[in-house]
Amino acid sequence: MATISSDDLLSALNWRYAVKRFDPAKRIEDGLWAALEDALVLTPSSIGLQPWRFFVVTDAAMKEKLRPAAYGQSQVTDCSHFVVMAVRRNLGEDHVDRHVARMSEVRGITVESLAKFRNMVTGNLERARVENRLDTWQTYQIYIALGNFMTAAAIVGVDTCPMEGFDPAKTDEILGLKETDYTSVVCCAAGYRHAEDKYATTPKVRFPKETMFVRI
Amino acid sequence: MATISSDDLLSALNWRYAVKRFDPAKRIEDGLWAALEDALVLTPSSIGLQPWRFFVVTDAAMKEKLRPAAYGQSQVTDCSHFVVMAVRRNLGEDHVDRHVARMSEVRGITVESLAKFRNMVTGNLERARVENRLDTWQTYQIYIALGNFMTAAAIVGVDTCPMEGFDPAKTDEILGLKETDYTSVVCCAAGYRHAEDKYATTPKVRFPKETMFVRI
Repeated sequence: MATISSDDLLSALNWRYAVKRFDPAKRIEDGLWAALEDALVLTPSSIGLQPWRFFVVTDAAMKEKLRPAAYGQSQVTDCSHFVVMAVRRNLGEDHVDRHVARMSEVRGITVESLAKFRNMVTGNLERARVENRLDTWQTYQIYIALGNFMTAAAIVGVDTCPMEGFDPAKTDEILGLKETDYTSVVCCAAGYRHAEDKYATTPKVRFPKETMFVRI
Repeated sequence: MATISSDDLLSALNWRYAVKRFDPAKRIEDGLWAALEDALVLTPSSIGLQPWRFFVVTDAAMKEKLRPAAYGQSQVTDCSHFVVMAVRRNLGEDHVDRHVARMSEVRGITVESLAKFRNMVTGNLERARVENRLDTWQTYQIYIALGNFMTAAAIVGVDTCPMEGFDPAKTDEILGLKETDYTSVVCCAAGYRHAEDKYATTPKVRFPKETMFVRI
């Protein structure tokens, strides 16, 4: 496998910042966007359950509709691809069965041979449901996707802006999610920074490394 | 900035898998590990608050102690660097003040000029506390770090295994976190796969891309 140097990795992560002003004239080219979608597909998740759906908004009218639900932030309309990351609520046996069927298909093994796995997974989900932490647990996985996506984008030279500052209920309504099992968790605008976005050169603020790590 | 091709990105993400069996003879070289710590430092977080601490365990005796708290999984002891990611509980004004002081230092601006920002942040945290979602919100940020870390590691050719299957209370006790403001959330073993780990070549199971994306 081709790897990149750690210097290039850190240069990309230092280049990344939460874009305040996107250049609305710059679009992510289709092939590159397809690769970023593939990167999202490859996100690891707990027990491999992939409890997510990604809404990729490029339509100008839909972006205009979504912008007020994000408190008017310009990134929604000025970015190239606006991604709303949604979690599957109340994850249950139907989802597990779909996953098991997909495992069987991809790995060429029988569904029957996965019975023990299936029982383990449904047991874990049921325990989380009873303890009222099921949706929170699955929501954690969405943030793995967000972290993976921002890093993947930076490495191929695409800018992003993560957004927790939006109204999930309004966003769900606009996207037609209200009657579904999915609800929006976090958004991420992707595209290219405007040449005049002053935040691009504002020094990154991080606590000193030595206060962040304990080495044992 | 040097970017890598999307093919190389996807090749790294396809190469990544949750390692079941690490090669205990292979250590991550110090310079490369320092870069992965830097990648963690650069993780984005909500309002830039970095509500985390990372415990990096390389000591064999400490790994042996932690392994039972991870239900005996061999990755804990066989990996090169075992990382326990901990969240700052009950995030409050002291942390915000520390962040504001650091902003002032890094950006060469006065603490007074950040008063509005400080009030906005403490207000947000207080609202989350009252609504009983403060710790959950901060825990989401840890998963951004996890996602960033696994992708960063894959890109420089380092293997990982994320682990939710461990006992946070026991782990906190072993790491001496019980009397602190931090609690362990998720772990990630890092190192190099054993040549005989059969999971390295097991086909990845993902739902079809078209079922995962809604494009608008």
